Amino acid sequence: MTLKIYDWHNGPYPARVRIALAEKGLQSQTCFVSIDLRKGEHKTEEFRAKNYSGTLPVLELDDGTLVAECTAITEYLDALDGTPTLTGRTPRERGVVHMMSRRAELEVLDAISIYFHHATPGLGPHVEVYQNQEWGLYQRDKALRGMRYFNDALRGQPFVAGQDFSMADITLIGGLIFAEQLKVSVPDECKALVAWYTRMQERSSVQNWRTMSA
Amino acid sequence: MTLKIYDWHNGPYPARVRIALAEKGLQSQTCFVSIDLRKGEHKTEEFRAKNYSGTLPVLELDDGTLVAECTAITEYLDALDGTPTLTGRTPRERGVVHMMSRRAELEVLDAISIYFHHATPGLGPHVEVYQNQEWGLYQRDKALRGMRYFNDALRGQPFVAGQDFSMADITLIGGLIFAEQLKVSVPDECKALVAWYTRMQERSSVQNWRTMSA
Repeated sequence: MTLKIYDWHNGPYPARVRIALAEKGLQSQTCFVSIDLRKGEHKTEEFRAKNYSGTLPVLELDDGTLVAECTAITEYLDALDGTPTLTGRTPRERGVVHMMSRRAELEVLDAISIYFHHATPGLGPHVEVYQNQEWGLYQRDKALRGMRYFNDALRGQPFVAGQDFSMADITLIGGLIFAEQLKVSVPDECKALVAWYTRMQERSSVQNWRTMSA
Repeated sequence: MTLKIYDWHNGPYPARVRIALAEKGLQSQTCFVSIDLRKGEHKTEEFRAKNYSGTLPVLELDDGTLVAECTAITEYLDALDGTPTLTGRTPRERGVVHMMSRRAELEVLDAISIYFHHATPGLGPHVEVYQNQEWGLYQRDKALRGMRYFNDALRGQPFVAGQDFSMADITLIGGLIFAEQLKVSVPDECKALVAWYTRMQERSSVQNWRTMSA
């Protein structure tokens, strides 16, 4: 089995799948195909035939099946060996992991992404063909509020979805990677969030991403 | 076991969970608590303590665990009996169902929702405290393009994620319910999408929602 991943080496969404692959020990079975975000290769007609939404990453299976969206790719990877470790084992765990991962998207990662594409030069005028600056700035503020929410959550538990590392941690890591790249600072009072992020940096999956993305 | 669902009888996101409950045969174990969207009860501090994002529906378990986000609640329900029927059985199915469900959110349901809250009076001025009309109208156009995409997809397969009914169908049903409520018409050329939607209306889970939401 070969997993073909279309992505970009330092993209924050691609980071989510690269970290998930490393956590699952699947990197040696993966080949990466570079889609140059700065050139807008993800917005071409050719690439949109693989993923209508024009986003990275996309997984292509040996049989040609295409799986876009980080949560969907993570579900695929986690189901491969039948013993999920990233998406929860019991119904309750599965519900909470999916909720917290989606919340990390809505309140932090996706909000930072909208800020980037709408209220900064983003990937440049040839890619950012429509921008809504006011919406971008509104989303940056939403992301800062989101960081405060996750800070509060992490004061009471070691990981985003509770007692175990999960997809929800990876999603929030993606959010903080994106914030870091854009120099959007985590609010000073978010000590628990910063402490969690420091612990996440010690995981070999995240260290490995840092090396690959450099 | 009792499943407590905080929702609103004719909300399009609540519809997704009500339809999933009916598909899973779990309605008799469910009690619904009305949160009045028109009064903005989902945006109060009290309700935000249950769901930080201030959205419906939210599932509360007997042990007090709160699960927000439709995909997360559906994952919980589908994992309950250990034989998922809505979220895919094999890794490939799981990946494709999650991708298509997320795509139905991004390209149709969430886009229509943003249109509603930003470019129409939405739930009224006491709830819609910030509106960005331009963004709302942009998202309406995105939803219409999304309908054309799903129309193309449904010309080649009976259900949104392929050969079987799944969570992805339910998400797109939610999108078309919302469009219907706002009188956003499906483009005339989308014959396959309309035919699929007509078939979906024949499912008892969807008929049941129509009755409950009236």
